[in-house]
Amino acid sequence: MAKEMGQLNEEKVFKDPVHRYIHVRDELIWRLIGTREFQRLRRIRQLGTTYLTFHGAEHSRFSHSLGVYEITRRIIEVFHKRPHWNEEERMLVLSAALLHDIGHGPFSHSFEKVFGVDHEDYTRAILLGETEVNEVLRMQGSDFPKKVAEVIEKTYHDKLVVSMISSQIDADRMDYLLRDAYFTGVSYGNFDLERILRVMRPMEDGAVIKASGMHAVEDYIMSRYQMYWQVYFHPVTRSAEVILSKILHRAKDLYQEGYTFKQDLTHFRSLFEGEITLEDYIKLDEGVMQYYFQIWLEEEDGILRDLCRRFLDRKLFKYSEMVSVSEVLKLSGYLEEAGIDPKYYLVIDSSSDLPYDFYRPGEKEERLPINLLKANGEVRELSRESDVVEAISGKRRTDHKLYYPADLIEKIDDSQLKRKIKHILKKDERDLR
Amino acid sequence: MAKEMGQLNEEKVFKDPVHRYIHVRDELIWRLIGTREFQRLRRIRQLGTTYLTFHGAEHSRFSHSLGVYEITRRIIEVFHKRPHWNEEERMLVLSAALLHDIGHGPFSHSFEKVFGVDHEDYTRAILLGETEVNEVLRMQGSDFPKKVAEVIEKTYHDKLVVSMISSQIDADRMDYLLRDAYFTGVSYGNFDLERILRVMRPMEDGAVIKASGMHAVEDYIMSRYQMYWQVYFHPVTRSAEVILSKILHRAKDLYQEGYTFKQDLTHFRSLFEGEITLEDYIKLDEGVMQYYFQIWLEEEDGILRDLCRRFLDRKLFKYSEMVSVSEVLKLSGYLEEAGIDPKYYLVIDSSSDLPYDFYRPGEKEERLPINLLKANGEVRELSRESDVVEAISGKRRTDHKLYYPADLIEKIDDSQLKRKIKHILKKDERDLR
Amino acid sequence: MAKEMGQLNEEKVFKDPVHRYIHVRDELIWRLIGTREFQRLRRIRQLGTTYLTFHGAEHSRFSHSLGVYEITRRIIEVFHKRPHWNEEERMLVLSAALLHDIGHGPFSHSFEKVFGVDHEDYTRAILLGETEVNEVLRMQGSDFPKKVAEVIEKTYHDKLVVSMISSQIDADRMDYLLRDAYFTGVSYGNFDLERILRVMRPMEDGAVIKASGMHAVEDYIMSRYQMYWQVYFHPVTRSAEVILSKILHRAKDLYQEGYTFKQDLTHFRSLFEGEITLEDYIKLDEGVMQYYFQIWLEEEDGILRDLCRRFLDRKLFKYSEMVSVSEVLKLSGYLEEAGIDPKYYLVIDSSSDLPYDFYRPGEKEERLPINLLKANGEVRELSRESDVVEAISGKRRTDHKLYYPADLIEKIDDSQLKRKIKHILKKDERDLR
Amino acid sequence: MAKEMGQLNEEKVFKDPVHRYIHVRDELIWRLIGTREFQRLRRIRQLGTTYLTFHGAEHSRFSHSLGVYEITRRIIEVFHKRPHWNEEERMLVLSAALLHDIGHGPFSHSFEKVFGVDHEDYTRAILLGETEVNEVLRMQGSDFPKKVAEVIEKTYHDKLVVSMISSQIDADRMDYLLRDAYFTGVSYGNFDLERILRVMRPMEDGAVIKASGMHAVEDYIMSRYQMYWQVYFHPVTRSAEVILSKILHRAKDLYQEGYTFKQDLTHFRSLFEGEITLEDYIKLDEGVMQYYFQIWLEEEDGILRDLCRRFLDRKLFKYSEMVSVSEVLKLSGYLEEAGIDPKYYLVIDSSSDLPYDFYRPGEKEERLPINLLKANGEVRELSRESDVVEAISGKRRTDHKLYYPADLIEKIDDSQLKRKIKHILKKDERDLR
Repeated sequence: MAKEMGQLNEEKVFKDPVHRYIHVRDELIWRLIGTREFQRLRRIRQLGTTYLTFHGAEHSRFSHSLGVYEITRRIIEVFHKRPHWNEEERMLVLSAALLHDIGHGPFSHSFEKVFGVDHEDYTRAILLGETEVNEVLRMQGSDFPKKVAEVIEKTYHDKLVVSMISSQIDADRMDYLLRDAYFTGVSYGNFDLERILRVMRPMEDGAVIKASGMHAVEDYIMSRYQMYWQVYFHPVTRSAEVILSKILHRAKDLYQEGYTFKQDLTHFRSLFEGEITLEDYIKLDEGVMQYYFQIWLEEEDGILRDLCRRFLDRKLFKYSEMVSVSEVLKLSGYLEEAGIDPKYYLVIDSSSDLPYDFYRPGEKEERLPINLLKANGEVRELSRESDVVEAISGKRRTDHKLYYPADLIEKIDDSQLKRKIKHILKKDERDLR
Repeated sequence: MAKEMGQLNEEKVFKDPVHRYIHVRDELIWRLIGTREFQRLRRIRQLGTTYLTFHGAEHSRFSHSLGVYEITRRIIEVFHKRPHWNEEERMLVLSAALLHDIGHGPFSHSFEKVFGVDHEDYTRAILLGETEVNEVLRMQGSDFPKKVAEVIEKTYHDKLVVSMISSQIDADRMDYLLRDAYFTGVSYGNFDLERILRVMRPMEDGAVIKASGMHAVEDYIMSRYQMYWQVYFHPVTRSAEVILSKILHRAKDLYQEGYTFKQDLTHFRSLFEGEITLEDYIKLDEGVMQYYFQIWLEEEDGILRDLCRRFLDRKLFKYSEMVSVSEVLKLSGYLEEAGIDPKYYLVIDSSSDLPYDFYRPGEKEERLPINLLKANGEVRELSRESDVVEAISGKRRTDHKLYYPADLIEKIDDSQLKRKIKHILKKDERDLR
Repeated sequence: MAKEMGQLNEEKVFKDPVHRYIHVRDELIWRLIGTREFQRLRRIRQLGTTYLTFHGAEHSRFSHSLGVYEITRRIIEVFHKRPHWNEEERMLVLSAALLHDIGHGPFSHSFEKVFGVDHEDYTRAILLGETEVNEVLRMQGSDFPKKVAEVIEKTYHDKLVVSMISSQIDADRMDYLLRDAYFTGVSYGNFDLERILRVMRPMEDGAVIKASGMHAVEDYIMSRYQMYWQVYFHPVTRSAEVILSKILHRAKDLYQEGYTFKQDLTHFRSLFEGEITLEDYIKLDEGVMQYYFQIWLEEEDGILRDLCRRFLDRKLFKYSEMVSVSEVLKLSGYLEEAGIDPKYYLVIDSSSDLPYDFYRPGEKEERLPINLLKANGEVRELSRESDVVEAISGKRRTDHKLYYPADLIEKIDDSQLKRKIKHILKKDERDLR
Repeated sequence: MAKEMGQLNEEKVFKDPVHRYIHVRDELIWRLIGTREFQRLRRIRQLGTTYLTFHGAEHSRFSHSLGVYEITRRIIEVFHKRPHWNEEERMLVLSAALLHDIGHGPFSHSFEKVFGVDHEDYTRAILLGETEVNEVLRMQGSDFPKKVAEVIEKTYHDKLVVSMISSQIDADRMDYLLRDAYFTGVSYGNFDLERILRVMRPMEDGAVIKASGMHAVEDYIMSRYQMYWQVYFHPVTRSAEVILSKILHRAKDLYQEGYTFKQDLTHFRSLFEGEITLEDYIKLDEGVMQYYFQIWLEEEDGILRDLCRRFLDRKLFKYSEMVSVSEVLKLSGYLEEAGIDPKYYLVIDSSSDLPYDFYRPGEKEERLPINLLKANGEVRELSRESDVVEAISGKRRTDHKLYYPADLIEKIDDSQLKRKIKHILKKDERDLR
């Protein structure tokens, strides 16, 4: 029979640059942090390739996960004294907060697209499979791992609990905005966390915000809006992401064509075969990925070599504001003519942004909106009260860019061909950075 | 004939959380940053294993190097208007500032000890060998790479130039204190950089500090003193370092004993053979190291497997304040008796600190002291004027600790043996963190 | 013949919490700071009665004026290397920046309304009259004081010069947002000043912003919007302002009714007579005002005594969201019936906000809009490019509140009368703070 | 029968730039803040004349008092869960923290010296006399005011309670270092408050510090040391203080000589007579003082006029490093000869500093030292463990300076006399700032 864990003899703290200290009083949390699956998050960067644009953005999902836990802990402290809050669910929401990103792989964005996997499946697998995380969670109760998975998957019956880590203003978003702003050094991500915590009120369907705190929430939404445009969608970051995808594509293509790699592919073989196990997945991290990029510098295949070199040495693609479809087709033809394979060297990348909306970009499920609690007890959705939020609400702005290797184009011998290519691109060429 | 490079058409900036912006106006600097050897510094952490104690400390030598460059650039701005400063040497000192750490390998501290290499040799090799860095430097003049090497090695004839990046108060130290404080989140490393820059004056033998700025310099020295004790010598960090060393030791020992590794050792073979080439050295980074730790989890050898597991999953050794030599010997015998190899599982680690002294710990060469320029023109060494600095000057404080695997000891079957071991250790056992 | 002043032998600096240091290199600026009219700004708070809501907001117009000067100095540094900038006008714009608030009186807002004066007239008078400021300015050229006045009054021929201290994004606004945020402790006023300075470009009709910096400007506009609602229009501050106005009204009314004050009115007599001299005006500051409030605590007149007590001891009026006109009239009647003079004890106060518009609230003159300079050379007004700014642009939001003395109402003996009064008010009564 | 007050229905908060928020949950504290005697602290600056050196230092004793309350509240939170802490004394220590400076007058330092009064007497008088503060305190119990006075006077029987606001590391010192650093903008006053709170432990004779937190305390002591030299003893501030003293001296001398002031002296008469009442004392604040300085600009007496002008317009005395006694006597004679009264125009000012000692400068009573609690339970005084603290402990550094009116000396007609005066002074003349 599982025996619930209690309080630590002495509170443990982690020094954290964003929240000053992260406080751990529960043995369960302390043990979860010590598991190999959680420690592995130290080897996966929070912002993927962003460090190639903002050199400070080298922080890991490990520190973000601790931060989400800490904010959740503080929300609970605020809610604790109030009705509607079920004390027994405290451990549940804290665990879910800490583990919400446990399934992420290295450079998830590109990785998942190329290999057709989904980190949410791995989150579930890590929570419920044969892992140290599962072992610790089960000590709390045999159905506890399942409940944690439900909270993270937003299917748990208590919406308030779910909303604390998955809503338009949850602990996850609040931590990443503050943290990403801190590590990149941009000032945009700052908002008054303490004020927002003070005006949050628990209700059955999720937390609401006292209307007197509306401006603090507007400020938070604007931070998100600014961070998307300034940091998350930065074209240089996307250029690095494009190259990363193309490396994985090329390696996979080569594998499927029967190409013989010089060095054994241990970690990648099952991926290329499309049948990766949980154990293999957990072993993957950014160190391992970069190791392969390093050894692929020695491969026979010129394209793979070139792309790896670009990623490791930050020789990125340049970009152009999108040109017309017909021109892209023309470009593609010209590049082929010049011996540059457009499959890997001409990429249209789109980013879109929904800084405040009921649906989050890229997600299928509904996101809980932000509701304001007015003095008279009425509850109103934020964008109906705020002009600023209304202005950016529900608008999907898409930004298309065309990425290409300016250096290779420069080296094309056929001067007429080169001129034609550059004529199309030069309309809006700009240097990276 | 090399043609000197000039100014960029438009200033480039890097957003930096410590200095707000890093400004690059010179083409030479811009190109050096773009070299593969410099980009590689992104894959080497500034503080080695410290991230296992302070989770924010995930920043790389890349960002530190940019920071040292930026502070140097600002010092030059201050000195520029004044005599004694040779304008032609501006590029020299900027390049040296940027490249002073270019030879660092992954987890240098342990790495260098185990393999008997020295990053300073690799710095020289990268500056003067067949590298992209060398190629860029040579554009400035054929003897320019050599001059940069001399500045970094402190043999350059102009002491003022040398002192800007190698003295008791140089751009290197000033950046790392501020940066390490920022990323760990501790407040101790802060001091008033702007004030110090304002009171620096160039003199033939190095920069001096106007006596009216003495208190700002005291504050800087105290920051250094505090950072050493709070961060750099933290026993948990040292525990991780101890394990790292033992991994490398074990792998090397196995190799030398003719053990067959399951996976090819590409990167490590030449290291184990003691004949590593520059090209191989450059390929090594922390991602590669961690890749090997990952695959060694599958090795036959139990010790190697266990140590790698400890490092990756942060199952560190615990520590005890040093016990007597005779007790260490006893412990060693007991462990052996219990089947725990003391060669890898019982480690005495010492750290020492010289927060302000004419000689820096671990270095053979002289360090220029900090001199104050008094209103009457007299120059006086800092510790003669400041009680506080005098109090911590020249004192080498050594802190010995004994590291051991508490979990393995706990599992010893022979209860009497276990009791004897714990009796020696318990005198001052304490949990990590 | 006036002799122009030059550079100081050694740069002077002021330690400033907002800009770190304020740098003064020009003798003219140094001397202007030393004049009695400028030093007087130390005795006038930047935010009037706001310190009664945000206790940190005790900073003076002196520190703000230095801040505006410093930002202007930095803008000039950015513009300096570029065309369109007339070097000879540097001193002009720096002087105008420093002196733009020189005419402000104590608690200007209420003060000017009650006594029908305008600080802009006094600014002009101080620049052109027999003052130390005028004496220093004239050393620069006999028409220099007049030119400075023209820049401040926005009639100077060179629009770029005017725009630096009077536009929708000028040194004045940028300093006060940052400074007021710093001293109140709210986080809303922060934006990336350094980034904005980097993207400013001088053009004939005023500074423009490179389009790539649009988001930084959006952030600045949002800061302004937030500061208005969170700080500048705070209802508690307005309650204090209401009481202040009523004190001045009552004293003036008494004077005009021939009431005999116990203590001589030196400073106020000429004000009450409506013929205040420049010399008298300059002597007025917040210390003097509060002195009178102190001695008026001893006056015969109960209303004056009560209002002064309220202001000094922060026994403010409470407020209600606006009720209908007919209810206000009813309330007024009830209060009169209860012996509470509604002339002084029932106040409707409105605030309005134009966070971004071509016209500033309360000003007659045009304000230069913010223009973006696109990559193709086109210039576009900000709100046409930014949804967020467009959302809050040109909308005048008015917030009416009704202020009244809840404590006096509580003490009304006639319980039926009291009930009727409270019935109207209770609809939306709320405590201050 | 007094009825104890309870908790507020809703927590009140004050936005504070140093502690983010100041939380008030007890009705007693809320009411004390609302008293006229406490509100009066808004009109008395925390750092007296320091704003004439550091223009940001315009903050009042009001905000400092709230800060001391807040830190005390946090210490109690830490102590609460532990033995030795008497819950009933919570209100006592919070009240004492809030009111510890309640007796301070305007520019206390000079004021008390000239008029021979002591703010501690007035603190006692305000707590026990017929005041709003006393009325509120008595609601808590008839002997409660007396107990609060005892805590502030350090005679209360429970040493732990006393130590929280009066020891070498109490809430008072911790708030003023952080606050003064924030408002002046110097970085020196910062230390890790949160860390210190975490390592404080209550013991019978006062709080002790866990030895593992020694470095945080060293950092705090160094902050204090730096703030003394950089801010509190700044010679420009002392110059302003010197002038302030001389104004009060001159006015008192004139009064005693029977001089007729143009304007009535209401507030000052009883002071000059040496029989000031509590009521009169409370009315005095810095606004009132500056009012008199303003009107004394119109007095017949040239010395009084000149000194007031100097203070208001910041035309301060310059200073010289101390010259010998015989030279001071000579100078005095020369000045007299030149018609400059040395009684008011030649001032020797000494400052001394005891940054860490068992006895605080200027105080008669003992100060509790800082004790460290070692892992083995032993308690050791800080300076025995810390080289840095030992280095600055118990050393009284005195800094003598000679202040004089350089401008008046410059105007002396007798060129030989002037030369002799300047010869003595020029040895070490330096400009203010």
